[in-house]
Amino acid sequence: MKSFSIGIDLGGTNLKGAVMDKDGKTRHITRIPTEAQKGGATVLANLLRLVEMLIEKEGGTDMIAGVGFGTPGFVDRDGMILGGAENLPGWKGTRVYDAIRERCGLAAAGANDVTIAALAESRFGAGRGVENMVCLALGTGIGGGIVINGCLYEGTHGMAGELGHIVVQTGGAPCPCGMRGCVEQYASATAIVRIAKELAPNYVESSKFAKEVILHPDRVTAKIVYDQVKKSDPLALQVNETVCEKLAIGIGIILNSLSPDRIVLGGGVMMAGHVIIDTVTKYVSQNCWPQIAQRCQIVAAELGEDAGLLGAGALVFDRIHGAC
Amino acid sequence: MKSFSIGIDLGGTNLKGAVMDKDGKTRHITRIPTEAQKGGATVLANLLRLVEMLIEKEGGTDMIAGVGFGTPGFVDRDGMILGGAENLPGWKGTRVYDAIRERCGLAAAGANDVTIAALAESRFGAGRGVENMVCLALGTGIGGGIVINGCLYEGTHGMAGELGHIVVQTGGAPCPCGMRGCVEQYASATAIVRIAKELAPNYVESSKFAKEVILHPDRVTAKIVYDQVKKSDPLALQVNETVCEKLAIGIGIILNSLSPDRIVLGGGVMMAGHVIIDTVTKYVSQNCWPQIAQRCQIVAAELGEDAGLLGAGALVFDRIHGAC
Repeated sequence: MKSFSIGIDLGGTNLKGAVMDKDGKTRHITRIPTEAQKGGATVLANLLRLVEMLIEKEGGTDMIAGVGFGTPGFVDRDGMILGGAENLPGWKGTRVYDAIRERCGLAAAGANDVTIAALAESRFGAGRGVENMVCLALGTGIGGGIVINGCLYEGTHGMAGELGHIVVQTGGAPCPCGMRGCVEQYASATAIVRIAKELAPNYVESSKFAKEVILHPDRVTAKIVYDQVKKSDPLALQVNETVCEKLAIGIGIILNSLSPDRIVLGGGVMMAGHVIIDTVTKYVSQNCWPQIAQRCQIVAAELGEDAGLLGAGALVFDRIHGAC
Repeated sequence: MKSFSIGIDLGGTNLKGAVMDKDGKTRHITRIPTEAQKGGATVLANLLRLVEMLIEKEGGTDMIAGVGFGTPGFVDRDGMILGGAENLPGWKGTRVYDAIRERCGLAAAGANDVTIAALAESRFGAGRGVENMVCLALGTGIGGGIVINGCLYEGTHGMAGELGHIVVQTGGAPCPCGMRGCVEQYASATAIVRIAKELAPNYVESSKFAKEVILHPDRVTAKIVYDQVKKSDPLALQVNETVCEKLAIGIGIILNSLSPDRIVLGGGVMMAGHVIIDTVTKYVSQNCWPQIAQRCQIVAAELGEDAGLLGAGALVFDRIHGAC
């Protein structure tokens, strides 16, 4: 059995790749620009070039089981990009498995980038040691990944885990998906900024930060809001409560549905640290059966930016070696 | 490998049991009263008596792989009832596997009754031929069951599938679970009656049925409402739209989360027939990613009252024979 895989994390800015083993130990980590604006054909050419660079560094494909990749959007069973990757124009419709097989002679396995980050957390990170785990990545939007019995669950068409679009507020904030009140509109970095701006006028008396938000709304970021949470600013504290209360509604729905052993929260927003974990945990048991909440830990992701890369490599062992 | 199993469906009124094979073919179907009001010890004694009756009819346990049962509430991995079975006082805490092993010398496998009905639909009914399926039982309440890769998904603690408690209306109707706006409060038989009563005053001009609802509110049942839907009564039609719109929000959340190949709707309410399927289907694609909705069929359950029995028997083959 071939002991290594190539993992590729396809981002809007960079393609990042590495050779890794089953324990998630990486070597030859390499980054090249995605050149997303040049279109799908260029992105594919760059992905193939990165795979070739890694094969060359490794000295051949003898020990390589295959190439795994994570991408924004959906990937079908034949390795075709089905859409949902708005920041990669022309990427939809690309047949990635065929291209990798033809050019490099290797089998390929691809999936949504957040989904495979969940796989990585399950194998090598905050989800280690439990059977059933759900990961939420709180970034510009919110993505999800579901691990069932230790294996990534993607659904028959690779589309499962769109957990950012669980509705948590009837008739709430409009979402680019076409619905209203999706959890993505309350607990993503984008939403945190919006909520801070919305609430600021109510806090001009008590919060210096509120005045700054009103004076310079364009300077507000999720990081700045959570820096203020650490300083116990009243506006920032209220934003955190609002964000976590809504996030807890979404997590409550996930708990009542799947009763996972662990919820792993990752993504840029989680740089804020444990204040989010603590506040969300407070609200979750009000939003599902308490017996289910008691049996689920809510924890922070551990792998940071490497999760996509590690998940891509792990996907190869699971899919091509048939471990899952 | 032993070819048969005993399946028991534990209801509030009757215990129903049968011997069955892997294809869901049953024999010796037997019913005895549950005697729920006499407490958990009596319920267990009756369950054991029913198993013994079936063993006697079968002429021994030589070909019996084990005993499966479905029960209201949750069952843990050791066969202990964890609660959630309010209509069976004293049933919580009962150790059913131990009792079956000691009395009958057979291995046992138990699960929530709605969950195993989903397993039955997956194997023998409306879920045949697909890998990933979610079942919603629209009865007095709403129960759920999730089948992933052809196997029942119950979560580590047997508590997954509480899909009746997906919140579909922020701050909506209070639910016995302690939350507000659960889908159970909008699409169960109980909810259909409540909604008919709530809407009736607006329809006194246009609907003869509305006048009856106001005059004799205690006579209204979900069946009567759907009989009026068939006659195109304006109140009943509006109730159906309200019910299905809210149900579609819950189904949309399930679709975005799990992207199943099929949603199977069962339970007493589905006696109403295809009007619910048609109306719900109309609303679902507005409540999730259309690409996911396009890849999911919404269908009616096929097995009716036998689903629990068949699922209990199937659970034995899955769990004890290790097929899942």
